[in-house]
Amino acid sequence: MRTAITPTRAEHFSDWYHAAVLELAQHGDVAGSQVIKPYGFAVWERVQQYLDAEFKRTGHHNFYAPLLMNISALEQEAKHMDFAQECAVVTHSRLVKDPDGNLVPDRPLTNPVIIRPTSEAIIGPIVKGWIQSHRDLPMKLNQWANVVRWEMRTRLFLRSSEFLWQEGHTFHAAKEEAEQHAKEMLAVYEDIFVDVLAFSPLVGEKPEYERFAGADQTHTLELLMQDGRALQGGTSHNLGQNFSKAYEVQYSDQTGQLTHTFGTSFGVTTRLIGALVMTHGDDDGLRLPPKIAPHQVVILPINAHQSEAVLEKCQAIADQLSQMQYAGAPVRVHVDTRDMRGGEKSWDWIKKGVPIRIEIGPRDLEQDVMMVMARHQAHKQKTKVSSLEVASVVTMIDSVHKALYDSAQKKREEDTHQYENAKEVIDHFNSSSGFVVVPYLDGKGSEAQLKPHGLSVRCLRPCSQAKCVFTGENTLTLAVIAKAY
Amino acid sequence: MRTAITPTRAEHFSDWYHAAVLELAQHGDVAGSQVIKPYGFAVWERVQQYLDAEFKRTGHHNFYAPLLMNISALEQEAKHMDFAQECAVVTHSRLVKDPDGNLVPDRPLTNPVIIRPTSEAIIGPIVKGWIQSHRDLPMKLNQWANVVRWEMRTRLFLRSSEFLWQEGHTFHAAKEEAEQHAKEMLAVYEDIFVDVLAFSPLVGEKPEYERFAGADQTHTLELLMQDGRALQGGTSHNLGQNFSKAYEVQYSDQTGQLTHTFGTSFGVTTRLIGALVMTHGDDDGLRLPPKIAPHQVVILPINAHQSEAVLEKCQAIADQLSQMQYAGAPVRVHVDTRDMRGGEKSWDWIKKGVPIRIEIGPRDLEQDVMMVMARHQAHKQKTKVSSLEVASVVTMIDSVHKALYDSAQKKREEDTHQYENAKEVIDHFNSSSGFVVVPYLDGKGSEAQLKPHGLSVRCLRPCSQAKCVFTGENTLTLAVIAKAY
Repeated sequence: MRTAITPTRAEHFSDWYHAAVLELAQHGDVAGSQVIKPYGFAVWERVQQYLDAEFKRTGHHNFYAPLLMNISALEQEAKHMDFAQECAVVTHSRLVKDPDGNLVPDRPLTNPVIIRPTSEAIIGPIVKGWIQSHRDLPMKLNQWANVVRWEMRTRLFLRSSEFLWQEGHTFHAAKEEAEQHAKEMLAVYEDIFVDVLAFSPLVGEKPEYERFAGADQTHTLELLMQDGRALQGGTSHNLGQNFSKAYEVQYSDQTGQLTHTFGTSFGVTTRLIGALVMTHGDDDGLRLPPKIAPHQVVILPINAHQSEAVLEKCQAIADQLSQMQYAGAPVRVHVDTRDMRGGEKSWDWIKKGVPIRIEIGPRDLEQDVMMVMARHQAHKQKTKVSSLEVASVVTMIDSVHKALYDSAQKKREEDTHQYENAKEVIDHFNSSSGFVVVPYLDGKGSEAQLKPHGLSVRCLRPCSQAKCVFTGENTLTLAVIAKAY
Repeated sequence: MRTAITPTRAEHFSDWYHAAVLELAQHGDVAGSQVIKPYGFAVWERVQQYLDAEFKRTGHHNFYAPLLMNISALEQEAKHMDFAQECAVVTHSRLVKDPDGNLVPDRPLTNPVIIRPTSEAIIGPIVKGWIQSHRDLPMKLNQWANVVRWEMRTRLFLRSSEFLWQEGHTFHAAKEEAEQHAKEMLAVYEDIFVDVLAFSPLVGEKPEYERFAGADQTHTLELLMQDGRALQGGTSHNLGQNFSKAYEVQYSDQTGQLTHTFGTSFGVTTRLIGALVMTHGDDDGLRLPPKIAPHQVVILPINAHQSEAVLEKCQAIADQLSQMQYAGAPVRVHVDTRDMRGGEKSWDWIKKGVPIRIEIGPRDLEQDVMMVMARHQAHKQKTKVSSLEVASVVTMIDSVHKALYDSAQKKREEDTHQYENAKEVIDHFNSSSGFVVVPYLDGKGSEAQLKPHGLSVRCLRPCSQAKCVFTGENTLTLAVIAKAY
């Protein structure tokens, strides 16, 4: 059977990914950089819209902190630890032509600066000036930004030197309030993962050794890709007073006493687009959940250059559909009038993962029929309709979301395994993949037994009392173990 | 009379600006960088929304090109000219701790890279791969991005090393189509300047010596600030085939012949926020046009801690108002319940330039009255209303836009001067400022007479035949001359 993507997922998952994701992005000229194509960026814009609306609903304000940071801002953090940060270091402020005609760096900076790899060390000193009294709290900030972490081995959306993200940073008067807020943002992410991205995330807490440096508690949403590897979809950190102490962020309470604020930070990145591809894609390419699909319906006039009437019919159906609503907004319909062969056009939209395609040719017009195809069903199943039942197309859009979600959930459930002892865990991964869930006591160094096998504890979840499969000690937590991206 | 900002505009315009703009932004730690505060960023988000909707309406697609560019990408451009570019040069990819405990750059890059100062040299090579045939044209792209140009003398929003902007880049098959598109985007900017930002721009073409390098034609929107200096609000360039030849962007036409595309680029930046402050601000601080004001109406409960009923009344009014529409969206109302003295609170919102303030205290409640104040009217003029006339508040919001626009237009008209000869032009600027409009023949080097006086030709506009005041030759253009930011 012909498939649009070579190789198939089964043949070589990683090459399949690279072929499928090319609809959305490509590598840039500078090693490790990426270009997000218009179609891929339209997906990201919709993810942003859903997230941004939720951030605002939960009281956050967007702002913008600088791209560049003084190295001295990291010295506080680096003082008591081994420190090495892969990042872009700016050492000169001018480019000039040398006598040989080559462009060379000029005007060395007295104090080199770096491009932000994350913004805690930039935002701490800013917010210190914004918070004086308990009346200034809570302060809930977010920014949409680009960050750079120098990466040598890159993969589009999954690992790149520059990526786009949102970083939330909040400041609270009470410890419990910060704890609660980190959980609230985890729940915001989880809702959007399920309702918008059709993901089936497993939420939990990171074990100590996997926590963000400076966090007391890191909540995570772990996703299972179709090749059985885990991908961290987003994190929400309870920072306690760690950063507020490093940057002296204090407030005076009702009695006038100075106290350090309690903080959270949370973020998701363009990596989510990679997760969309690896969760929902099939051997014909992308399958996009309708809420973030740039077009929910694409209408393809077949051999339209022969018939003006076909084009008119297609446009009439498009007009009707865009009067309808899906998920609180007009249905997004696109009529593809490009001068291309019909088959080529269909495959183009199949690869691009458009939820619903409608095809109409001159013969269909005669019989007043159209072909309606949902992307999540085998592409040879066609539905004939004698007149446009607009409501049924909208229902079909919704069924695409449900089908993708169900399939992601089924995949995760089927690929989650439970074992009784450590040997079984290692044996499992010698021949298989997925999530392995076992009773686990954190903080005992058992991760050392996993690391040589390329495994990690993705998250911890509560359970009734059981014996840790590594230490034999009593524990109230389960570990979710996997190979991860 | 007390004013919220010290000094006043008349006393020291530049210090006044710095004091007024602090509601929106502040300097960052790295020299030349700036922090856009939540209130300032909320203004920028609204400017973005209006622009982005227009870009999409006119067929543009957002995408994202990398932050970093290879120096070699500029070599083509630098080959035939003197070249010096103030920019951030990245020379190392790692930061480590040296034996003395200092953080120092590590891992020098074989090929240093720079942070984009603009993206033509990044986008050219990308689009070269996207365009093959006439069917791929026109291709209309836009990106919202940060760019860095190293600046030593900085001023918030007006001149900073890093700033935010949008850059449109389009590719066309025909010369006339590109020319037309550059004009269309100029018109898009002009509409938003007038209808959204309440500016009174003067549009025209840049003289040859002020054109963007690589443009055949640069359209500009010139704004007049309250101190009589001009500010370039936005530009739209007809690039001809200059960039497509440099980056080999070609398409095959219907006959299979390869031809270089014709291009445009156009952009506006966060500088527009500086222009908002300097166009509309008064000695009490900002005055924000309602369409981009984060809050269009702020309701201030006075001595509310004494009276729960006051708070309830304020909230009831807010609820009513947010059911109403202004400019196609629900009215944005904020009830300020902060525990502060009433006078302090009022001044805070006056400085922040909220179009309408409503105050209610316990005594007002007894008499069922409220105080409604429009920011553009002297703050001592108060309007009593016995019951909420919601429609009248919405009308009042609109009147704020009109008042700000009228005032900007009046200022520009009154401060535009016409002269008969070159000496009068120079004399004018010895004692005064504003726009001076004179017949002018471009390309004759007359700008050399202006430069020593800190003057430049802001733009050229058509006129019926006249004699150039500098050369005495016949001309069909007027020059708009000013001191500029």
